[in-house]
Amino acid sequence: MSLQNHPMNTWYVAFTPDEITDKPFARQICGIRLVFFRNEQGKVVALEDFCPHRGAPLSLGTVENGQLVCGYHGLRMGDDGETKSMPNQRVQGFPCIKSYAVVERYGFIWLWPGDKALAKEELLPVLEWAENPNWGYGGGLYHINCDYRLMIDNLMDLTHETYVHASSIGQKEIDESPVSTKMEGQSVVTSRFMENVMAPPFWAAALRANELADDVPVDRWQICRFNLPSHIMIEVGVAHAGKGGYNADKAHKASSIVVDFITPESDTSIWYFWGMARDFKPQDTALTDTIRTGQGEIFAEDLEVLEQQQQNLLRYPDKKILKLDIDAGGVQARRMIERAIKQEQAANRPNGE
Amino acid sequence: MSLQNHPMNTWYVAFTPDEITDKPFARQICGIRLVFFRNEQGKVVALEDFCPHRGAPLSLGTVENGQLVCGYHGLRMGDDGETKSMPNQRVQGFPCIKSYAVVERYGFIWLWPGDKALAKEELLPVLEWAENPNWGYGGGLYHINCDYRLMIDNLMDLTHETYVHASSIGQKEIDESPVSTKMEGQSVVTSRFMENVMAPPFWAAALRANELADDVPVDRWQICRFNLPSHIMIEVGVAHAGKGGYNADKAHKASSIVVDFITPESDTSIWYFWGMARDFKPQDTALTDTIRTGQGEIFAEDLEVLEQQQQNLLRYPDKKILKLDIDAGGVQARRMIERAIKQEQAANRPNGE
Amino acid sequence: MSLQNHPMNTWYVAFTPDEITDKPFARQICGIRLVFFRNEQGKVVALEDFCPHRGAPLSLGTVENGQLVCGYHGLRMGDDGETKSMPNQRVQGFPCIKSYAVVERYGFIWLWPGDKALAKEELLPVLEWAENPNWGYGGGLYHINCDYRLMIDNLMDLTHETYVHASSIGQKEIDESPVSTKMEGQSVVTSRFMENVMAPPFWAAALRANELADDVPVDRWQICRFNLPSHIMIEVGVAHAGKGGYNADKAHKASSIVVDFITPESDTSIWYFWGMARDFKPQDTALTDTIRTGQGEIFAEDLEVLEQQQQNLLRYPDKKILKLDIDAGGVQARRMIERAIKQEQAANRPNGE
Repeated sequence: MSLQNHPMNTWYVAFTPDEITDKPFARQICGIRLVFFRNEQGKVVALEDFCPHRGAPLSLGTVENGQLVCGYHGLRMGDDGETKSMPNQRVQGFPCIKSYAVVERYGFIWLWPGDKALAKEELLPVLEWAENPNWGYGGGLYHINCDYRLMIDNLMDLTHETYVHASSIGQKEIDESPVSTKMEGQSVVTSRFMENVMAPPFWAAALRANELADDVPVDRWQICRFNLPSHIMIEVGVAHAGKGGYNADKAHKASSIVVDFITPESDTSIWYFWGMARDFKPQDTALTDTIRTGQGEIFAEDLEVLEQQQQNLLRYPDKKILKLDIDAGGVQARRMIERAIKQEQAANRPNGE
Repeated sequence: MSLQNHPMNTWYVAFTPDEITDKPFARQICGIRLVFFRNEQGKVVALEDFCPHRGAPLSLGTVENGQLVCGYHGLRMGDDGETKSMPNQRVQGFPCIKSYAVVERYGFIWLWPGDKALAKEELLPVLEWAENPNWGYGGGLYHINCDYRLMIDNLMDLTHETYVHASSIGQKEIDESPVSTKMEGQSVVTSRFMENVMAPPFWAAALRANELADDVPVDRWQICRFNLPSHIMIEVGVAHAGKGGYNADKAHKASSIVVDFITPESDTSIWYFWGMARDFKPQDTALTDTIRTGQGEIFAEDLEVLEQQQQNLLRYPDKKILKLDIDAGGVQARRMIERAIKQEQAANRPNGE
Repeated sequence: MSLQNHPMNTWYVAFTPDEITDKPFARQICGIRLVFFRNEQGKVVALEDFCPHRGAPLSLGTVENGQLVCGYHGLRMGDDGETKSMPNQRVQGFPCIKSYAVVERYGFIWLWPGDKALAKEELLPVLEWAENPNWGYGGGLYHINCDYRLMIDNLMDLTHETYVHASSIGQKEIDESPVSTKMEGQSVVTSRFMENVMAPPFWAAALRANELADDVPVDRWQICRFNLPSHIMIEVGVAHAGKGGYNADKAHKASSIVVDFITPESDTSIWYFWGMARDFKPQDTALTDTIRTGQGEIFAEDLEVLEQQQQNLLRYPDKKILKLDIDAGGVQARRMIERAIKQEQAANRPNGE
């Protein structure tokens, strides 16, 4: 990465447990080529993907007894980045490779790309929906060629739904409704409320899944919460009009949480973990699949716009872009990011200089 | 474009009317990413393809009532580069994007990539064949990865037909005949005359299409006319030998004009608009298709040579190339281009410095 | 090539006779784009692939009467790099293009990329197996995206067979046996001997091809010989255990020579000519094909590892790699290469400065 544009001492989602098998798993995160594998205790560990012997990627090798065996000459790498053995060689003097803090929780493997000594599991976000059996979750992963902050902008201003997602969740009333932006503790929150509107196709289907009429007016809400480094949870839903909207009784509404974890791969590419958590029919796996398919199609529409936007910004490096009211959520989120980067850099200077 | 290698205050062919629909149309010309669309009056306009809000390409959006609606957040861009409206926003202070002069004429859309104030329709070339019903025209478009001047060289010296187009229009007598190069007003003209030769396959077919014997000797001519910035019209034809050659009566000859508009996309790529205008059977659309297919196959042979030549010149940046007699047409054309660029640059300096 | 990392005044394998037809043949070697063709005497010659007229690659053209005819405008290039003729042109003043020394021998075409005056056929390696009818040979060519020295390392330490070629020639005893490295005249020699082991699948098949039992213990040997600039011949074989190993009578062993000529294309790509020479059933072409297929599959496994290693070394330019005992062969070979480069550079300085 040319210039550090994201915090390092924080947790990012690295992958989901289904992505790792009994083989090493390679992924680049925050500019670092990493190899992940499960050690003898079954715990996922992360190392630089570089064999200290001849520089081959360790991810080409195998996992044996919780050690990584290089696929070139059989060096055995421990889960701490120390070479444990190599046929016919003494390995005491071998240089270590860097190891990184990893936690598996909430159905994700989390990586702390910065200083391992500062990594603490309690700094993970709290995700109630991920551990409460009254909630169901389904999601997916997209690789997108854009700066991760363009995705934050995208998610903190849902005006784009009217244009990018016209056939599913978009509706004219979104961009006709004002957006409100505020700080709530360490969160940036943008919210929009629409009253007495017709539900667009995605929400009409959600009403039906809740056994609610889909041909009557609804009140609709979107409440986006950004937290460092790049997690956005969006409460979304519709309630039959006049039943209390966001606060309506469960009997009158369909609601869920759009889950977004955005992990930088490079300056201009991301791993985008998206999903939806719902507190109705949590065990209905067919419904989970239906929602995942629908959401996946909608979010693929963002993918194209964001990649084209990124290419265009690279083409016109001297052009300024606007920061309108609707962009305030993204602007505030970027400010939090910049402050976090500055704090890290200040902490890294000797004598606090 | 790294260094300006082409005039800006001049008309280039941008595209043909069949390329634009009711959606915005994106094309890069002279290094500029442009979006084209028809305004409320149906006139084609050209703008920078950059939304002033967040930098998305406007070409991803839609055209509504002659305005361009950004596909990301619905900003409405006028045909003059000024933002007309945006949901829930005041847009008075929005920066303009650059607009460019465009003319639709002769079956082409022409772009003036430089100073809009200097663009005048009367500076278009005069193309008699394009508006006279006694003429028929068919053509096509190739994207070629080469400096546009390599295509000018190619067309101003047809010696290459013997080698590149051996099976269609090439014949040994071409490179055995001397070429003459001269200025005629603002045109560079190279010409070649071959007497008492057999017609190669393409011209034998043209004789037959004119109901003329194709198994008797002919006189053949090629007269290439270059005009700024990069338009080349080539009068080509054959007449039964001894009937006056170029000046023979129509009853004894088959002739046409090869039409070439070369539009730089980048330093090393072009949009090449090629075609053939003929003054026989102008309404015979089957004949137009046959000629277009044949010409398209021939010109695809140039494509490969030019791309390979360009790659080789990039590989050997220090090597000089020769300027032989046969290259004089291209050399003169390049001189005109250089003079035009210098004049533009002089005019752009304050106080005529 | 950014920095010279290989000797120039030496013979490299350029291609095999089956690769060249009656058309010009293009290949980049040591950073030089070359065109090869047979002159009027049938001798292969090599020139820069650059037409002095307009810079088109001469390899796009044709060969006529031992001259290269440019496919663009018909310039006729002689086998010495001098333009011989061009239609309607005097060519005396045309600049020459560089010509290179070429020898066809041993079933290969060899190129001397440096000073032609220093090229002598007697500096070719002596390849007894290539000219003795008691030997059979089969081989192939791979293009691999890695520095040629990574392939030298690979071949001078066969420890990797245990890991990279586990299903064919690899076996645990390889990396359990010490390797010995020494100089023999101008050769670096690494050798490994394993006693009383079971033959892995490739060698079991070779025993059967020699009508020898494949289910009894064998003694196995690997003797790798590196010679400048990048030729590696590896004596490999197995003998029924206790019959004398490497020195056993032919009646008890299966043996052959793995042949490796490594020719740099660029700093990070090579032409890898691999093969196997055997002194049993030399005329059995079906056996030749079987061995070639098996060897080709095995060497394709190296290809993937080497390309990934190269990419990883480029990703981590500041990381050092280790030089272990098993790497001594590659380390010595690199020293010989560096000395040869320095000698060339010293010879090129005026007054021996």
